[in-house]
Amino acid sequence: MKEKLVVAVVGATGAVGREMLSTLYSRNFPATTIKALASSRSAGTRVPYGDDELVVEELTENSFEGVDIAIFSAGGGTSTQFAPHAVKSGCVVVDNSSAWRMDERCPLVIPEVNAHALKKHNGIIANPNCSTIQMLVALKPIHDVSPIKRVVVSTYQAVSGTGQKGIQELETQVRQLFNGIEPENTVYPHRIAFNCLPHIDVFLDNDYTKEEMKMVNETNKIFEDPNIKVTATCVRVPVFYSHSEAVNIETEKKITAKEARAILATAPGVQLYDNPKENMYPLATVAAGEDATFVGRIREDESIANGLNMWIVADNVRKGAALNAVQIAEKLLEMDLVCVKDKNLFM
Amino acid sequence: MKEKLVVAVVGATGAVGREMLSTLYSRNFPATTIKALASSRSAGTRVPYGDDELVVEELTENSFEGVDIAIFSAGGGTSTQFAPHAVKSGCVVVDNSSAWRMDERCPLVIPEVNAHALKKHNGIIANPNCSTIQMLVALKPIHDVSPIKRVVVSTYQAVSGTGQKGIQELETQVRQLFNGIEPENTVYPHRIAFNCLPHIDVFLDNDYTKEEMKMVNETNKIFEDPNIKVTATCVRVPVFYSHSEAVNIETEKKITAKEARAILATAPGVQLYDNPKENMYPLATVAAGEDATFVGRIREDESIANGLNMWIVADNVRKGAALNAVQIAEKLLEMDLVCVKDKNLFM
Repeated sequence: MKEKLVVAVVGATGAVGREMLSTLYSRNFPATTIKALASSRSAGTRVPYGDDELVVEELTENSFEGVDIAIFSAGGGTSTQFAPHAVKSGCVVVDNSSAWRMDERCPLVIPEVNAHALKKHNGIIANPNCSTIQMLVALKPIHDVSPIKRVVVSTYQAVSGTGQKGIQELETQVRQLFNGIEPENTVYPHRIAFNCLPHIDVFLDNDYTKEEMKMVNETNKIFEDPNIKVTATCVRVPVFYSHSEAVNIETEKKITAKEARAILATAPGVQLYDNPKENMYPLATVAAGEDATFVGRIREDESIANGLNMWIVADNVRKGAALNAVQIAEKLLEMDLVCVKDKNLFM
Repeated sequence: MKEKLVVAVVGATGAVGREMLSTLYSRNFPATTIKALASSRSAGTRVPYGDDELVVEELTENSFEGVDIAIFSAGGGTSTQFAPHAVKSGCVVVDNSSAWRMDERCPLVIPEVNAHALKKHNGIIANPNCSTIQMLVALKPIHDVSPIKRVVVSTYQAVSGTGQKGIQELETQVRQLFNGIEPENTVYPHRIAFNCLPHIDVFLDNDYTKEEMKMVNETNKIFEDPNIKVTATCVRVPVFYSHSEAVNIETEKKITAKEARAILATAPGVQLYDNPKENMYPLATVAAGEDATFVGRIREDESIANGLNMWIVADNVRKGAALNAVQIAEKLLEMDLVCVKDKNLFM
């Protein structure tokens, strides 16, 4: 273990940034110093770190001098601009935005799934999209037993995926509606209260959203298998915390529901939660605040020979973002990979 | 047109029963008399019918003397018990429960899809499940162009599907949570406020819910095609009105998204609502109170050769229940089928 280990959290005042600080603290991450960085607007404010508080410093190109690991959660623009400077300072970046995910130089890592990919890192490691993380934590152990050929996924995503402002919008709209006031949309294009929006991130030329294509492309990259076919419909629902997913898969060989349960019962990061007769199945309210990815409603898909349906739920801010990023940082330490080979690679 | 046409609404005080009365009125259904029937508990109360009110009468085995058409929406038990008595009185029953749907003697009808099946009716016509109705209104025109081989559907179903008590439970729980009170569950097995429950109707031996198997079995019966394979995940979401559905289909021949849009643009009962660049896609808030089934987010599924994804939304109380039942009654009149061949068939 390093005698001195300086960790920076970029975007420390946001929903995910705060969760990152809380996760670093609660997991006893062996940092000797934690720097909370954010835009100039937030500089000077304080954010909680355990029982303590950290004074937020302004993010600049020079913020990473002496920093060993920087965990970014401040949007794609900030990551694109500042991660190369961090690497230039010799700092390893774990980035939660989508900016570097499909860059061939950057491993895209879920520690339970493909920690080995960290060995080839070049200074920036990308944290996958929240919807992808929980799906692949549940699917990897099955893929290892019989390769998955196709995935059809529909998501039920919480407003916390949009950050504090998403949480605020849902809360405000509910209050407005319950007080007879016409609700206003400022964050989402339509009302989210008591509504479902099949629209997360921007629309692309193929009429899929960027969020949907993230689930396709990130799955191929993380599984290192371009043959897995994925099609996704991503939907924002009026839930504060935790994303739920209805996932239909087709495997090469038959896996029974019973076999799938046995596989998932001991899978890393998975909490098998599947006893329908007792009304036990994963729920957003069960997963919120938890580290595990909950899997249940496992049943054979009778419409094809080798199909399975399952219901996968995880705390999108935690395993979907902060926890996964901190777990990557932990793996970097464990595998002795906190070093940058070419400081100018991204400049 | 009949000189005298007596129509009874059974379960007139429930959410769907009230919507049936409202639909009969607003569509100028040519009834000369409307009888509102309900359990003895509600007898004597009044329900609105246009600007007027009807006094609710107690449902008994003799309630159907002189009644031409009875529309039932009072649960499977009531339908099982009383529909045979209605038929025995010479009354044609349109039943909204699941009691008679899979009975070979009873056509299962969506007027836009299989009105022809009414010709073989024996006194009881079943109204399909709400989730099935809206899905098949959208899929039938595509199925007619190229047969659908497989459907993978995930639903986002409103609490009004559970009736007034579902609406009340969501509203109460939201108020409790916003007032710092621990919410109580009385209708659903878990909290529905800000949560998604992958559990609608009871669990069956194959670990699917009855709601999920309705979508499978009713699709086969309505399309008169046992070869269409359907797999469903049915989920209750914190929305008051309108069910949304993420539907993935595989057709025999390729249908492009553009072709699908052209087909659906002129399909009966369908409102094509698909312009993602303008943030235009079906929403629960758009469909609520409307007759049409809204279809959008149409895109080719790149994971298989002949696949399409779409997002289908309709008012579950209206097209999913009351409107479809009234449309069946209208078709019965139009096709001169308001008569019972064998009054004792169901006794």
